[in-house]
Amino acid sequence: MSENVLIPRLAIMGVGLIGGSLALALKEAGAVGEVIGCGRGRPNLEKALELGIVDRYTRDPLEAVLDADLIFLATPVKTLATVVEQCLPAIKPGAIITDGGSVKADVINSIEPLLPDSVHFVPGHPIAGTEQSGAEAAFPSLYRGKRCILTPTDKTDLQALALVEQMWTIAGSTVVKMPMDKHDRILAAISHLPHMVAYSLVNAVGSYDHYEENILEYSAGGFRDFTRIASSDPTMWRDIAETNRDALLEMMEQFEVFFAELKADIATGDGEKLFEFFLRSKQLRDAIL
Amino acid sequence: MSENVLIPRLAIMGVGLIGGSLALALKEAGAVGEVIGCGRGRPNLEKALELGIVDRYTRDPLEAVLDADLIFLATPVKTLATVVEQCLPAIKPGAIITDGGSVKADVINSIEPLLPDSVHFVPGHPIAGTEQSGAEAAFPSLYRGKRCILTPTDKTDLQALALVEQMWTIAGSTVVKMPMDKHDRILAAISHLPHMVAYSLVNAVGSYDHYEENILEYSAGGFRDFTRIASSDPTMWRDIAETNRDALLEMMEQFEVFFAELKADIATGDGEKLFEFFLRSKQLRDAIL
Repeated sequence: MSENVLIPRLAIMGVGLIGGSLALALKEAGAVGEVIGCGRGRPNLEKALELGIVDRYTRDPLEAVLDADLIFLATPVKTLATVVEQCLPAIKPGAIITDGGSVKADVINSIEPLLPDSVHFVPGHPIAGTEQSGAEAAFPSLYRGKRCILTPTDKTDLQALALVEQMWTIAGSTVVKMPMDKHDRILAAISHLPHMVAYSLVNAVGSYDHYEENILEYSAGGFRDFTRIASSDPTMWRDIAETNRDALLEMMEQFEVFFAELKADIATGDGEKLFEFFLRSKQLRDAIL
Repeated sequence: MSENVLIPRLAIMGVGLIGGSLALALKEAGAVGEVIGCGRGRPNLEKALELGIVDRYTRDPLEAVLDADLIFLATPVKTLATVVEQCLPAIKPGAIITDGGSVKADVINSIEPLLPDSVHFVPGHPIAGTEQSGAEAAFPSLYRGKRCILTPTDKTDLQALALVEQMWTIAGSTVVKMPMDKHDRILAAISHLPHMVAYSLVNAVGSYDHYEENILEYSAGGFRDFTRIASSDPTMWRDIAETNRDALLEMMEQFEVFFAELKADIATGDGEKLFEFFLRSKQLRDAIL
């Protein structure tokens, strides 16, 4: 093992798409020494070993983090603090913990109080993903060209922050730093709200019982594409809805205001306002193409 | 020209994706004799001639329908009655008019009163399309494997209905017949409502001004895919929102009920209800994959 590697020993807690892809990206770049995978399902861990994502694995969190320089938490967002609690006794002084959780304030508030001064937590969220999951879904270029948001707090060690920033840069991401509440609002707007809208839309249309047949049967390609995200994992989205509640409620209210305005313009048949509403949306949308 | 062709002379009023693709499908099947294209823009009509979509073209509606056996209206939904008014004096007795408008009650109520008993109107709506438009976007397999909804009324001639049904079957579609109000509700649910939701979502997120930068800049692939339909033509959607108002408002209210329920469950943090809501949506969505 080269002495110049950024992370001599990396522990991946949860070897799925997110954790596995980071390991592969760092391995490909020669930025990591040994990678230890930790998880609950042995078949998935065995697969990760086979695919060269990890060099060895264990189902024991304490063993996984022993002598690790960096610990990446990539389990579901509500389990992150529990994982930290489980492995804390074996974490060496000076080690860095970072995570990939899609909600930040809740995660930070549950993890920071657990940690001694000698263990550094750098909260993060790589904005990347596919609809697949598990070690088999991992690939080294997942983070390339994507943004990774880091949300340091007053307590965040600056050297640890710099190392995590370097790690994500090596994985191909553009690192953006911002306060946790800003992260949570932005994600509520661009990811959590659209999921709530899609879930509501499918339920509303699927529950319309004016006719004998389910009108979803008539859905064409457009509806299917639009509602693809309503196929996402219910457990994951329950957890996000619970942990990012305030920001999500704020964005849902923002949406309701605009939807109500549109509904009112349709009711009064105000063609000019309708055109303006649709045009403004098209312009905003086309600007992010 | 074979004497056995289904439609010896076909007039296409509006030679874009919808009109052009029907002409190509019928030509490919040998089901049509001469195809005359009519529209306002000469470059598009010239293109249609070049591509073999039409055999000749004219910008004069009266000339276009002269001696036509079937007239297909494929101009924007709010213009359909005007097109009928313009060409009516030249339509021969026994000719059939059919359309591709995505709203039916409004179109039927504006066209049927114009017609003498000798001209047969068969209201229709092929559920197909892409984001492209114009003659260049047309292709013969657009309607293959898709549904085409016909909405006959008390006044609809049964022989004309049978011929239009046969025409769409030849183009590759499965023909479904239903009352116009049912069509309008189904389309409001599976197409018009999703567009209103997408337009509102983009406006709501793009108008959030808590931060200096536009948070749409952070949107990743998921948001872009989800909001693609918010790039649709504002004029077309203004027309649909105006002409299918009642069904659309009904569906928007149905959506609001479910969205409000979800919001309440998030506010109270009812994990069980949230899970059920997401799961039910996922199951409904996965059933139409």
